[in-house]
Amino acid sequence: MNFDEAGAIAALQRIFGTSHRGVEIGIGDDAAVVTTTQKSVITTDMAVEGTHFSTAWSSAFEIGRKVTAANLADVYAMGGAPRYLVVAVTLTGEESMEWIEELAEGIDHEASSCGAFVVGGDLAKGPCKVISITAVGECDRPITRSGAQLGDSIYISSLPGWSAAGLAIIEKNLDSDLAEHAISEFCAPTVDYISAVQFSNSKANALCDISDALIIQATQMANASKVAFSIDKELIALHPEFATLKELAEIAGADVWQWILAGGEDHVFLATGKDLEGFCIGTVIEGSGLIGVEMKKAPETWRHFN
Amino acid sequence: MNFDEAGAIAALQRIFGTSHRGVEIGIGDDAAVVTTTQKSVITTDMAVEGTHFSTAWSSAFEIGRKVTAANLADVYAMGGAPRYLVVAVTLTGEESMEWIEELAEGIDHEASSCGAFVVGGDLAKGPCKVISITAVGECDRPITRSGAQLGDSIYISSLPGWSAAGLAIIEKNLDSDLAEHAISEFCAPTVDYISAVQFSNSKANALCDISDALIIQATQMANASKVAFSIDKELIALHPEFATLKELAEIAGADVWQWILAGGEDHVFLATGKDLEGFCIGTVIEGSGLIGVEMKKAPETWRHFN
Repeated sequence: MNFDEAGAIAALQRIFGTSHRGVEIGIGDDAAVVTTTQKSVITTDMAVEGTHFSTAWSSAFEIGRKVTAANLADVYAMGGAPRYLVVAVTLTGEESMEWIEELAEGIDHEASSCGAFVVGGDLAKGPCKVISITAVGECDRPITRSGAQLGDSIYISSLPGWSAAGLAIIEKNLDSDLAEHAISEFCAPTVDYISAVQFSNSKANALCDISDALIIQATQMANASKVAFSIDKELIALHPEFATLKELAEIAGADVWQWILAGGEDHVFLATGKDLEGFCIGTVIEGSGLIGVEMKKAPETWRHFN
Repeated sequence: MNFDEAGAIAALQRIFGTSHRGVEIGIGDDAAVVTTTQKSVITTDMAVEGTHFSTAWSSAFEIGRKVTAANLADVYAMGGAPRYLVVAVTLTGEESMEWIEELAEGIDHEASSCGAFVVGGDLAKGPCKVISITAVGECDRPITRSGAQLGDSIYISSLPGWSAAGLAIIEKNLDSDLAEHAISEFCAPTVDYISAVQFSNSKANALCDISDALIIQATQMANASKVAFSIDKELIALHPEFATLKELAEIAGADVWQWILAGGEDHVFLATGKDLEGFCIGTVIEGSGLIGVEMKKAPETWRHFN
């Protein structure tokens, strides 16, 4: 063991354990006791070393941010606002105290940016690093995947594909001036939480997070809403970031549409409604499934059963 | 892969996905939306194959029950009642569909026994099985570890040590008529949730779960309450199950007091108060720490930072 377990827990308590409004009993007892509203959102995410993150590519701070962002995004994707997190971590025992503290600081940083706080957790020992975070949030008016209405416009909060681009660049060890943003999005995505709030406030009919892939979650939303999504690739190509992503794809010998439509891990929000603040990529029409986006290679299936 | 991922998720949705009061949006969207009261309890637990459970010793159903019980017990240990669970699982891909379904059924069985329901989850792939459960519950009057009062009696809900006994029996491959209860407690403990409710209803001043070890959590409670716990081993020896556990310890060549005081993984509740329904083992007095229970070997340190 490179770290003392009691010392690690004390460090986590110090990093997470400041007092916050709404937290009646925080870290230090059998469970946390917090103030909740009438409706709460609950979501959980598990990230495994080698599958979801790599210590070779990402710092502990980035890993903490990334795993936390995945959870927070899911709360926003329901039209909610995250309040409390619990964090369960499996460590191998080879980690340094510094690495553990940086991980906690990454989690705390991302949570704080949304006004959410870690109120408890668990540490376990195992053969690889696993981080599981559960977020609990407030939600007055839940926005599901099933609310898309005929005639709605379809919006994305930003251009997906940057995380897939980052992975390709790292794997192929490419050097490009354009690469930095893609790599940082892969290592720890910048989630535009505000855009989800804007979708929610402007009365989006349907809302979700497209962290698995645009075409996977657009299909889920269309199916849940019993409509078809007509997506216009020419509209997507008008996105101000498209040209840069396309240039990167050419450097990497990749298909930019594969990155955009099937990349995954981007935490971009997808919404339907009228006159929403977002980037319009199509229209909700009668029928089923997706129209206008054919894929050479289907993305991997989703992992959630939320 | 021995199972189809989409098929596994469909099975989990089927097992967990019945409709329950309070669950506005269950499995199938970005997050669950549930009805909550003004105060909620939140706790998380992570169990790793090889560290917390073994598929050689326990069935998938037992493993599901055991990990769930650890979470539920923590909610009761705050004077709360569990309502909703989210379950994140890492699988290696070598599991059969049957094993996954049995795990889910074990989780569902234990949760249902307390009126709690699984409302969401996540599936990940990794080098070993990891199960992380988060429970959210109601709590009108939280009972912490810091409320023990001078003159309180100290109570346990049942005799701890059975799980440690079970582990010893399995490890040494002992054969005894007495062993069955110990082995089943190790593989999937029977948690006496009602006793926690009774402690809570009869106005316990302090309450906790002693899943780490009696002496660890009694020390934590004494320290948090700024008092000393005088524990009388002669009182513990009067417990109706003591003679059987002692006989088993002799067969296993173990120290029964090591099992009782430092065994861990028992999910027995420890409470202080006046005239509580439980088994009295001592008195709260002035001072600090524990009096009356000296250990030959200190138990391993705790893993929670709840």
